[in-house]
Amino acid sequence: MKNSLLLTSLFFCMLNLINAQQRVEEIPLKIGVMQRGALNAITDVEGVKVGHTTLVKGDSVRTGVTAILPHGGNIFQQKVPAAVFVGNGFGKLAGSTQINELGNLETPVILTNTLNVPTAMDAVIKYTLNLPENENVRSVNAVVGETNDGYLNDIRGQHVKNADVISAIKNAKTGKVAEGNVGAGTGTIAFGYKGGIGTASRKLPESLGGYTLGVLVQSNFGGVLQIAGVPVGQKLRNYSFSNNLLNNVDGSCMMVIATDAPLNNRNLERLAKRAFLGLAKTGGIASNGSGDYVIAFSTAKGMRIPYKIVTKTLTQEVVPNDLMSPLFMATIEATEEAILNSLFMAETIIGFQGRTIKALPKEEILKYLKEAGVLED
Amino acid sequence: MKNSLLLTSLFFCMLNLINAQQRVEEIPLKIGVMQRGALNAITDVEGVKVGHTTLVKGDSVRTGVTAILPHGGNIFQQKVPAAVFVGNGFGKLAGSTQINELGNLETPVILTNTLNVPTAMDAVIKYTLNLPENENVRSVNAVVGETNDGYLNDIRGQHVKNADVISAIKNAKTGKVAEGNVGAGTGTIAFGYKGGIGTASRKLPESLGGYTLGVLVQSNFGGVLQIAGVPVGQKLRNYSFSNNLLNNVDGSCMMVIATDAPLNNRNLERLAKRAFLGLAKTGGIASNGSGDYVIAFSTAKGMRIPYKIVTKTLTQEVVPNDLMSPLFMATIEATEEAILNSLFMAETIIGFQGRTIKALPKEEILKYLKEAGVLED
Amino acid sequence: MKNSLLLTSLFFCMLNLINAQQRVEEIPLKIGVMQRGALNAITDVEGVKVGHTTLVKGDSVRTGVTAILPHGGNIFQQKVPAAVFVGNGFGKLAGSTQINELGNLETPVILTNTLNVPTAMDAVIKYTLNLPENENVRSVNAVVGETNDGYLNDIRGQHVKNADVISAIKNAKTGKVAEGNVGAGTGTIAFGYKGGIGTASRKLPESLGGYTLGVLVQSNFGGVLQIAGVPVGQKLRNYSFSNNLLNNVDGSCMMVIATDAPLNNRNLERLAKRAFLGLAKTGGIASNGSGDYVIAFSTAKGMRIPYKIVTKTLTQEVVPNDLMSPLFMATIEATEEAILNSLFMAETIIGFQGRTIKALPKEEILKYLKEAGVLED
Amino acid sequence: MKNSLLLTSLFFCMLNLINAQQRVEEIPLKIGVMQRGALNAITDVEGVKVGHTTLVKGDSVRTGVTAILPHGGNIFQQKVPAAVFVGNGFGKLAGSTQINELGNLETPVILTNTLNVPTAMDAVIKYTLNLPENENVRSVNAVVGETNDGYLNDIRGQHVKNADVISAIKNAKTGKVAEGNVGAGTGTIAFGYKGGIGTASRKLPESLGGYTLGVLVQSNFGGVLQIAGVPVGQKLRNYSFSNNLLNNVDGSCMMVIATDAPLNNRNLERLAKRAFLGLAKTGGIASNGSGDYVIAFSTAKGMRIPYKIVTKTLTQEVVPNDLMSPLFMATIEATEEAILNSLFMAETIIGFQGRTIKALPKEEILKYLKEAGVLED
Repeated sequence: MKNSLLLTSLFFCMLNLINAQQRVEEIPLKIGVMQRGALNAITDVEGVKVGHTTLVKGDSVRTGVTAILPHGGNIFQQKVPAAVFVGNGFGKLAGSTQINELGNLETPVILTNTLNVPTAMDAVIKYTLNLPENENVRSVNAVVGETNDGYLNDIRGQHVKNADVISAIKNAKTGKVAEGNVGAGTGTIAFGYKGGIGTASRKLPESLGGYTLGVLVQSNFGGVLQIAGVPVGQKLRNYSFSNNLLNNVDGSCMMVIATDAPLNNRNLERLAKRAFLGLAKTGGIASNGSGDYVIAFSTAKGMRIPYKIVTKTLTQEVVPNDLMSPLFMATIEATEEAILNSLFMAETIIGFQGRTIKALPKEEILKYLKEAGVLED
Repeated sequence: MKNSLLLTSLFFCMLNLINAQQRVEEIPLKIGVMQRGALNAITDVEGVKVGHTTLVKGDSVRTGVTAILPHGGNIFQQKVPAAVFVGNGFGKLAGSTQINELGNLETPVILTNTLNVPTAMDAVIKYTLNLPENENVRSVNAVVGETNDGYLNDIRGQHVKNADVISAIKNAKTGKVAEGNVGAGTGTIAFGYKGGIGTASRKLPESLGGYTLGVLVQSNFGGVLQIAGVPVGQKLRNYSFSNNLLNNVDGSCMMVIATDAPLNNRNLERLAKRAFLGLAKTGGIASNGSGDYVIAFSTAKGMRIPYKIVTKTLTQEVVPNDLMSPLFMATIEATEEAILNSLFMAETIIGFQGRTIKALPKEEILKYLKEAGVLED
Repeated sequence: MKNSLLLTSLFFCMLNLINAQQRVEEIPLKIGVMQRGALNAITDVEGVKVGHTTLVKGDSVRTGVTAILPHGGNIFQQKVPAAVFVGNGFGKLAGSTQINELGNLETPVILTNTLNVPTAMDAVIKYTLNLPENENVRSVNAVVGETNDGYLNDIRGQHVKNADVISAIKNAKTGKVAEGNVGAGTGTIAFGYKGGIGTASRKLPESLGGYTLGVLVQSNFGGVLQIAGVPVGQKLRNYSFSNNLLNNVDGSCMMVIATDAPLNNRNLERLAKRAFLGLAKTGGIASNGSGDYVIAFSTAKGMRIPYKIVTKTLTQEVVPNDLMSPLFMATIEATEEAILNSLFMAETIIGFQGRTIKALPKEEILKYLKEAGVLED
Repeated sequence: MKNSLLLTSLFFCMLNLINAQQRVEEIPLKIGVMQRGALNAITDVEGVKVGHTTLVKGDSVRTGVTAILPHGGNIFQQKVPAAVFVGNGFGKLAGSTQINELGNLETPVILTNTLNVPTAMDAVIKYTLNLPENENVRSVNAVVGETNDGYLNDIRGQHVKNADVISAIKNAKTGKVAEGNVGAGTGTIAFGYKGGIGTASRKLPESLGGYTLGVLVQSNFGGVLQIAGVPVGQKLRNYSFSNNLLNNVDGSCMMVIATDAPLNNRNLERLAKRAFLGLAKTGGIASNGSGDYVIAFSTAKGMRIPYKIVTKTLTQEVVPNDLMSPLFMATIEATEEAILNSLFMAETIIGFQGRTIKALPKEEILKYLKEAGVLED
């Protein structure tokens, strides 16, 4: 690293210490009308684990891996119902057609950068083949999503390695989830500011089902930033096409939804579609070059699909269509807040070729939010 | 009409005169960052015509028909490229599979109530069969959308007749578009207030293509109303599940997009998908029972598809993928504003079985908007 | 009817008496490798009813209605799981988007001619609104498919009336199903010969699930006719593009699948897709102008979806993915045989404007089948 | 290799020499009614290149790579219109969502085994990044299909390496295409016999457009084998569920279609759907575990999509819907014949753990074909 870069880096680092990152809830800002889960994270859904491998090396490596595990057991042997919705398909999500055909997920969900999707797939395959009980497995549907961190990261260098992916899976844990410049969010950019990993959750009241639903996102897209409805992007004069030029608005957003509601593939696909609405509420426009994908799965124990089925039928207790709407609303709110958390928790970074992407200018934003009267007391 | 109802009705009517309906632009409120078209209506797209038949009869008929014509000629003989996106398919939209298979639209688009879809289809078929040049036509793909106005309208009475549909088509005209309680919006409800027909448009700067794009909606859905980002629904304590009960959040939203950009079916379908994002920004959640459909068509003259094709190939000049993003943003903004216009232009109404649905409480809302600092000077 | 026509008609009628129509099984010809159901009809699936209204009037009316009821109760109150697959979407099938969104069917399935879809929809709506228990119903997803009988039938006259549809529903019954020139098949044409309604079924051995699956088709399409694999169309020198001209190969095929296997929407959609493979085996090519749609439903009692759901979850016992393949094979075979039955059971007809379409030339065909060694002993 | 295996291997090898592999056209057998292209191969479509890497090593490696290049230039810089149809999505095809979203293909199409998809993707990415002109490329949509050769190949060993993929791409050439046990078809099985790579083509007469269309398949699936309509599988008493047991019918079929007809994504997707019909005519049932995917692309020069677009619109001359049917029929015929070629050209093989899969018993089959009268004179 050149000296000047090093100094600037140190400067930002200190700045970050001063302006310690805060989650949306700490600002405090309320998104929507529903109640948050205990941790306000995808891990509020019982059994869900998240692991990150963050790769920050030298001047040019700013990338990583995030793994989301629907449960702590052998996922291949105990598959979970799942669905994929393609918001905008300019992306390389692996595994989507099998998820929607068979209605299930049989591996951890991995997020990484665009050009390392094969690395992550291969790692997931090897991980699955090597699990006890899987000695005879000859087919694995590795599910890997990505966004393009090529502005801040030397993406052509394909710096994610097999061990990085395995590490994210093995270190995945329940509980609090690290956000911002971590894992697959290390080098991503959203709305012209540093994006990254974010998460949030909602807990429905018993009268609406009592279910928990959590969302985790890897934010890397553009549009006109809105925070709790306040048109912050406009106020900051920093938004797509602001100069009437076709500037780079592209990027992508990967969204992962977990819920303990017993849903089958069809209603999970409907749920996944609603995450796209949550993205809209942050000002995202799903631009041409954006790979906006949503993966939703159910952790409900009664919905597990064993690899070897020995009975003629599977008994499932599913949520009827009529009771889906609260889950839809929860998805929209949790997605909106997860994206905002990814921005609020991200820090200014200097990356590939000395490029700098700043964190959200929080002071200025807080001023706008206060003026708009959206801050909680 | 019973006397009490009559008096109440008169009262609301006077109230309406005092609180004359205003479009979003007159409040004045800006939605998004792009420039409006001259009329801020779907008819800003050259050649597009809109016609309404409004049916308000006695105590119980509160319904109607809205017709959108992509051009003034024989649409069957000069089809236009088109696409349908199904946001949530709890609805009866007729014609969607053929539009997406063949990539074109060959009739006016009709909007009406749920149980009169067959009436409207039959009228469109008869209208098309009877046009000059169509003497030998034996197949017509009538495109009819709907929302359910059964709370305010005696929908089981199926009061829309063939002549009402033909009238909407024949009276369709370019220029200003009536909004609120007109046509297919006569009896609809959105966010607990009177919804209806609304429209808006955007005009891209030359540097972004120079295209015009307009949206017309029939709003009849629920969620948590947001106006220019301000959480008005919450402030009014009037939103879905506010009491933690699964109250009726259902309804539907029909969205029609016209543009003079030369787009084929694939990019029109992508455009249509973005209207769903515009719906989200008003607080819509696409609830289980909502039929949320988007129909998009291109009026570009070079894209017309003649019924009888005499050449081996069709020459088309299409917008490349890379230039779509500004059109996506225009769609989101115009859809959001069209929905808001449908609400702001609607008036309090007493309908079937004496049920009353009030117009937006504009004074209170203006106060909230002012406090939030979103009103223009 | 002009005298000459009358005489010709009588002649063909007598010819038909001599060459009495035979089902594929009576020829005897075996299609595929699986066992037929008792009646070799869609009504082998317990509870399924079929009704026809056949309209043959004067010189020009050759059309009708076929109704398929998944069970004998109130279908709206006791919906059945269902799915639609669009093979080729040049058609007017009503109701497809709601079936796939909600995963169920709430009305009889009606087949008729292209321009009478609205009539049939309206009749289904009225029928449903008027059923006991449905007094408060305000939304009905009428499912109506069609093919175009406009060559033999004065289709522009829209001769099917509300009462014809109601009659087909009310007269629907279990047991033997009339085939050929009946109901919605009265005026259809397939492979240049008289098509119509056909049905067939398969019964799986207990070791493969023991389920029954039946198919009913309305055949009206082109290609190169193959019977039990024998290229009959070529031998008869009567097939699409045989003269290297773009002659009319269009038409459509509506296919309806019923099964008592407990399947949800996802696996029913997969089943529906396989009917498209069955169509291929008869030589169909799903030409540009063909509306090839498949509707599949499950009659399994445990899968019924009550209109009013009072419990938080629905308990379903579903067939796992791994056991679907025998049902796929059964679908392919039953579809192939149902199409062939529609041809073998159809009779020569004189229709609109004196046009004649002949029945399959059975003697010649039997000769070909015998030569190919496919006839059973 | 153990001695006994070696001897058996030699024996089969000699057998193969005696029963030299013949293409369907050499038997001679005619499939369908249309004219073959000059080579009866996908390479009849001008510019299309095919390359194989065949990996047969020791006792257990029986796999490989097949690469299909739409043209000889830089595909990333000169993308071609493309579409994917998912017949049955139990497979790992990479790249499908971007192809359908953007309507184009930007890399060679690679076929390999299930567990080496990541290897092939990574090789395609590296190959693309390293091409001249691509120095700044940071996103590549690698398109890789697969079938599972794990019965004959030590698939868990993931024996395909980067260099094998690059080699298949670099050695790809126009002209005659090797078939049978080559490339990605080295270890595949179809209908219980040795499958592999097969290809075929059709050339439309000028009156139907004059276009050429070719198909290449990697066959690895089950059902009831039919050859030119003759139920050979039944006659050989070798077909799925023949013993009423749920034996392994699974596998997959990858189908690649090339045409010089100027088609956009929508009509290419329709074309792709027809390959599924061709599969049906060979007796395929698209069983639960089958990954049946079709990738179709157009090589028409006027349809190329440059990576850097400098004009506001792209001018395209596309085939209108009405002229698609002959191309549909050509697709069905070429797919059927390509699958049969893959079987007729494959040779008996001994693979992993000494397992043997025999080639089609040609003598017996010829006898059946002769009896059925389908052999050409």
